[in-house]
Amino acid sequence: MWQFQALLKMSFAYRYLATVLWAGGALALFPDCVNGPLKNETICNTSASPLERARSLVSLYTLAEKINATGSTSPGVPRLGVPPYQWWSEGLHGIAGPYTNFSDEGEYSYSTSFPQPILMGAAFDDKLITDVATVISMEARAFNNANRTGLDFWTPNINPFRDPRWGRGQETPGEDPYHLSSYVHALIKGLQGDASDPYKRVVATCKHYAGYDIEDWNGNLRYQFDAQISQQDLVEYYLPPFQSCARDSNVGAFMCSYNAVNGVPTCADPYLLQTILREHWGWTNEEQWVTSDCDAIQNVYLPHEWASTREQAVADSLIAGTDIDCGTYMPSHLPGAFAQGLVNTTVIDQALVRQYSSLIRLGWFDSPDRQPYRKLDFSAVATNASQQLAYKAAVEGIVLLKNDGLLPLSLTSSTSLGLFGDWANATTDLLGNYAGVPTYLHSPLWAAQQLNVTVNYARGVGGQGDPTTESWFQIPGAAHASDTIIYIGGINNGVEEEGHDRTSIAWTGAQLDVITWLAALGKPMVVVQMGGGQLDSSPIANNPNISALLWGGYPGQDGGVAIMDILTGKAAPAGRLPQTQYPASYIHEVSMTDMSLRPGANNPGRTYRWYNGTAVFEFGSGLHYTNFTASVTSQLKPSYDISELVSACKTSNTTYLDRCPFSPLHVSVSNTGTTPSDYVTLAYLTGSFGPAPHPKKSLVAYQRLFAIAGGASSTATLNLTLGSLSRVDARGNKVLYPGDYSVLIDNQPLTSVNFTLTGGEAVLDEWPQPPANRTGKGVSGFEGYFVPGFGSEQAVG
Amino acid sequence: MWQFQALLKMSFAYRYLATVLWAGGALALFPDCVNGPLKNETICNTSASPLERARSLVSLYTLAEKINATGSTSPGVPRLGVPPYQWWSEGLHGIAGPYTNFSDEGEYSYSTSFPQPILMGAAFDDKLITDVATVISMEARAFNNANRTGLDFWTPNINPFRDPRWGRGQETPGEDPYHLSSYVHALIKGLQGDASDPYKRVVATCKHYAGYDIEDWNGNLRYQFDAQISQQDLVEYYLPPFQSCARDSNVGAFMCSYNAVNGVPTCADPYLLQTILREHWGWTNEEQWVTSDCDAIQNVYLPHEWASTREQAVADSLIAGTDIDCGTYMPSHLPGAFAQGLVNTTVIDQALVRQYSSLIRLGWFDSPDRQPYRKLDFSAVATNASQQLAYKAAVEGIVLLKNDGLLPLSLTSSTSLGLFGDWANATTDLLGNYAGVPTYLHSPLWAAQQLNVTVNYARGVGGQGDPTTESWFQIPGAAHASDTIIYIGGINNGVEEEGHDRTSIAWTGAQLDVITWLAALGKPMVVVQMGGGQLDSSPIANNPNISALLWGGYPGQDGGVAIMDILTGKAAPAGRLPQTQYPASYIHEVSMTDMSLRPGANNPGRTYRWYNGTAVFEFGSGLHYTNFTASVTSQLKPSYDISELVSACKTSNTTYLDRCPFSPLHVSVSNTGTTPSDYVTLAYLTGSFGPAPHPKKSLVAYQRLFAIAGGASSTATLNLTLGSLSRVDARGNKVLYPGDYSVLIDNQPLTSVNFTLTGGEAVLDEWPQPPANRTGKGVSGFEGYFVPGFGSEQAVG
Repeated sequence: MWQFQALLKMSFAYRYLATVLWAGGALALFPDCVNGPLKNETICNTSASPLERARSLVSLYTLAEKINATGSTSPGVPRLGVPPYQWWSEGLHGIAGPYTNFSDEGEYSYSTSFPQPILMGAAFDDKLITDVATVISMEARAFNNANRTGLDFWTPNINPFRDPRWGRGQETPGEDPYHLSSYVHALIKGLQGDASDPYKRVVATCKHYAGYDIEDWNGNLRYQFDAQISQQDLVEYYLPPFQSCARDSNVGAFMCSYNAVNGVPTCADPYLLQTILREHWGWTNEEQWVTSDCDAIQNVYLPHEWASTREQAVADSLIAGTDIDCGTYMPSHLPGAFAQGLVNTTVIDQALVRQYSSLIRLGWFDSPDRQPYRKLDFSAVATNASQQLAYKAAVEGIVLLKNDGLLPLSLTSSTSLGLFGDWANATTDLLGNYAGVPTYLHSPLWAAQQLNVTVNYARGVGGQGDPTTESWFQIPGAAHASDTIIYIGGINNGVEEEGHDRTSIAWTGAQLDVITWLAALGKPMVVVQMGGGQLDSSPIANNPNISALLWGGYPGQDGGVAIMDILTGKAAPAGRLPQTQYPASYIHEVSMTDMSLRPGANNPGRTYRWYNGTAVFEFGSGLHYTNFTASVTSQLKPSYDISELVSACKTSNTTYLDRCPFSPLHVSVSNTGTTPSDYVTLAYLTGSFGPAPHPKKSLVAYQRLFAIAGGASSTATLNLTLGSLSRVDARGNKVLYPGDYSVLIDNQPLTSVNFTLTGGEAVLDEWPQPPANRTGKGVSGFEGYFVPGFGSEQAVG
Repeated sequence: MWQFQALLKMSFAYRYLATVLWAGGALALFPDCVNGPLKNETICNTSASPLERARSLVSLYTLAEKINATGSTSPGVPRLGVPPYQWWSEGLHGIAGPYTNFSDEGEYSYSTSFPQPILMGAAFDDKLITDVATVISMEARAFNNANRTGLDFWTPNINPFRDPRWGRGQETPGEDPYHLSSYVHALIKGLQGDASDPYKRVVATCKHYAGYDIEDWNGNLRYQFDAQISQQDLVEYYLPPFQSCARDSNVGAFMCSYNAVNGVPTCADPYLLQTILREHWGWTNEEQWVTSDCDAIQNVYLPHEWASTREQAVADSLIAGTDIDCGTYMPSHLPGAFAQGLVNTTVIDQALVRQYSSLIRLGWFDSPDRQPYRKLDFSAVATNASQQLAYKAAVEGIVLLKNDGLLPLSLTSSTSLGLFGDWANATTDLLGNYAGVPTYLHSPLWAAQQLNVTVNYARGVGGQGDPTTESWFQIPGAAHASDTIIYIGGINNGVEEEGHDRTSIAWTGAQLDVITWLAALGKPMVVVQMGGGQLDSSPIANNPNISALLWGGYPGQDGGVAIMDILTGKAAPAGRLPQTQYPASYIHEVSMTDMSLRPGANNPGRTYRWYNGTAVFEFGSGLHYTNFTASVTSQLKPSYDISELVSACKTSNTTYLDRCPFSPLHVSVSNTGTTPSDYVTLAYLTGSFGPAPHPKKSLVAYQRLFAIAGGASSTATLNLTLGSLSRVDARGNKVLYPGDYSVLIDNQPLTSVNFTLTGGEAVLDEWPQPPANRTGKGVSGFEGYFVPGFGSEQAVG
């Protein structure tokens, strides 16, 4: 059977308990509120509020039972009939290990495996994301009903993909904070259902809060890295997706991260967990809780040395607002912390009330009769519709970067296709990390072999990023026998992975060697660049003998079919790059530990908003098999008075001024060619308003339009807000500034619209400042152990 | 079955051909000189010299057949009855993959798996090394007779372990060039047999020539790294083991490396391959050949960009003296090189004559009747004596670093031992990389369970270097139930491996957390530090609650028993650290790409000879269960005249002056305690002779003495040479200098002897200088690809 990649990748705690908790349902899966010990308690009274019910249950616990419940593998309370519960499930792009138990064969031996978020992000289709997340949560419920997974999923990874080296960038939708904020809103809706639903489908967990995007760069390990981030960058770049989760999307859970931010490990930081998350963003529903990343509580002690003792570390974390410890550190050391008077029952009760309120909202205590989700079985898993959605997600994300007219390929029965590269026959590589067991795995080679053409295959290069040729012997025969050359390669999880950041963003010499040798044959040739992080494809883009270049990410179980369908014109490409493709030299120009977005002495700037060099391919790049024009049909006023805009919002009782609508933009998009095609409408804001330096442009809205026929038009509605127009000042305040504004449609752009804001500046969101004194407590006796950030302390360049 | 770690680790070329070549003997394994097409040719005439025979065979080949024979997977020549041959076998510490075919069960499903060289190096026992290598070569012959492996083994890895971060340092015997030179001489004798034997047992391959000791440090990939090494450092540090292989040990093969040295990829460097290796070291026997590391020939083109075309790369490499290409690059692109007139038949004939002369010396063409090695079968594999030798090698290497008297443990039937750490139940971890299938795997836990005591086990921490706690829940119970605590952890192949250098040399926070928690219980406690590269164990050494510390390396199939036997006193420790244990901060003080050994502005110096900081544990450290005294019993003169020393050597017709004997030192070693114990006699030379700066001291001889009983003595004979006394000047010449010399016995030292050299300095070995013009040819069109050394271009510290 397929291997659980996540299980292999993650050497986290407690794997051994998986068998205890999910082994064939030997233990009760749900509390019995009909006949169990709790039947007459308020916890079982569905008329009571979740808060009342949770408080009632927690009041029945002894202190020891409460402490036991602070770990992710919660043992339950047998005397009360509360069964064990495993908080940790994964569902990044389909349900996955380590605590999802696929059977060896038959029912529950597979599920739907979607593309990695980085490719789904490239679709710029929020509806797609909701649909995908809905399938994942439905399949999760079916597996949960069979006692094969939990109800709480530690997805999404919504840290912006700041640096192309990050090994886990593949798990995110890309580099742009607006894009991520919109994407995650759609995702949470799909996973959890509507906030008004009587029961949540599953609980999503926004991770890793915050500033987590380094695995191990030059000795800077994620477990001990202290990210130095300005308030401006925090609000402008690192936090918007999390604000979207907490304030705007009612997400059920947050995960604090391994790293520290500005000196404080995030899981022990009341500024991040209480002041920002709960108070400023209003994330105060009792059913919302924070888990640590796995063993991040331990890291508060070692290697962060924030807390001077184990007991102080667990007390600090619990008091700061971490309600669940992924691990056993908190339940192991809270007894000592209580004994030392470092923590009291009010705090632990608060954590447990949050936990159980959440489980109540998932229907854990309620009769299955009233819960449709509890009736789902394997017939809800891997349905035809789900399979088709996985295919659709792959097609929508694939990005066409170069095409001299060769694509789409014209095939006849006498066509001879040559497939080369270590991705040409990719199977598990298609999935990327945190994958479960897919329904099937269709490689590009398999997909080509379904066509009525001759297929010649030679892998040609080593796998897993190994820069060696596989066998030159096989290449010439396959190449000479082919009319058309397709090279599919790039990187995979051997190069970018959890725990390892990349040390190069160039194609390997072996791959370029094979590619250029093939190109020198002068035959029609296509290169498909795979993997999550971008590679510098300029040698391919600049090679006149290579007609076309696509980026395919990690396209999932049907990825090979999606690629071949686009190459052959059965589907038309409309994805857009969700990240900047930097030149290979970029990684030598800035330390990965430099968290600044703006250019500086040793930093050329990060993301399309600030990078002051020339990208190989820009964020938002993406060609089509046709051409489009666009025009803005809505009438904007030439100017708006800031005080009028703000007072109108206040009049309409808008809680958050930055969410208050500005005039929507209607953009009419026309397909001037003949090939029907989707089109992603990207709206960028640009102008010299607000504090210098100014970003080159900023994505403020997007909408994917579908299947616009040749000669036909379709209209995108781009809902701008006052926040769309705002800038962030040095203190992190969101401010509307007077000045001249332009909205550009698409990268070229196809059209634009201008307006002016007049009057005085207005603060839309006043950012709470961090406390002045945030120094660590230090741990004596470990001076020789602590490893300071190597790259962060030296000049780079 | 056990997985082939080497197979998993190495994604090299041609794995697919393994099945063709070694699948059950479907192809002929040996040429048939009795009935085959060659029976009347000189190649089959055993009275002719190997050179005549090889030349005869090669003269029968067409050019195409010759070109086909330049790759490591040689297809043979069917029309002549020359069968295919796979040059690539591995045998680092036992026969291993990727081209060793173990059966699934029964005969040939396992072999003897010895400790990693880093631990065998710690034994400082050359006789042991010869014995181990003899077993490996005998088992290899048995497997070869069953068509399950080849006759050419790409072992040893004899690059000095220069930097503790190197992921493959575990494959080497340590950091000292004299130690490696002596070790490799013993090893080659064991693998190949005596030079006078009618047939070689197997052919050893000294790799990686030269200057190869970086995998991927901060973007400096081994495939493209250009090591800048002074002639002084080359002769003094990087080349002595290779000189030992070529000049002094008659090794059959060399492997050129991925990296470049001073601008030239080693496989295309006539200075290294011809001037130094063949001319200066006299490695001119026709049966001696050079293979490239796998696909290193391709790297000459990309990414080194040394050759401007593929054809130039293969021509440059063949002409420089690379006789076999591990890969298919040479056979694929030599036709073009011939067509372009870049290479002629004289050069390819030379390569093939070397290859076939070597196979002739292995008996490949000769009747099995006259070859005892051809009669070996599985009864020669994994014998009781071999198993005992694997155990002995582990025991001899383990190093005792701290002991307040707790060790050896006194056990009774009421003793309760607590075993903790991710190595306590290690199985495959015991082996390290490049391992085959061991006969068995005895973990420390297994070994403890064989004792008549109670054993409590809790792993406690994540594996594969993951700095998380496994489960605190399990720790307290196991700890409180135990009288004595044994923690076994450190690093493994998840942290140090081929392709990845370490980014930290500190213990993980999680392990220190568990260790200090256990230590705080105040029970008798031992820590065993495992893995190849050293960790900074100062937190353990300085913890008064931890009584003892040992280093166990990768102790192999019986490693758990070896550890427990030393802990319990069934065996006495006498291993010595073969590498410096630096403080954790060391890696921040010097770039890994700085190849200089001497201290400099951004380099605190490397190895015990030059490091100007305070080591946590020095090279050569190692305690015993008893005490030793030593005295030098041989009488040295107070002074020697240099010209007399040299002229005496010339009179005795010494080919190489540096090998000419100096007065041997006889050292009487007395065990003043009661426990019988081995003792490693280490002799260091020190003094202010020759050019400044002067090394702190230099190992010039060692001898392990065995089982010295309490109160008894034994005598070591340390054979010094003029080379022992020499220094290397800036041009790489070996020179005898006048001055005052001291030989120190052991690290403390236990005793010393002084003498003076008088008169004028004398050159013992005049080093050939590199040609002045060694600039690369450059490759147009790849400017955007080449990744310059990041760390090498910046200030560090």
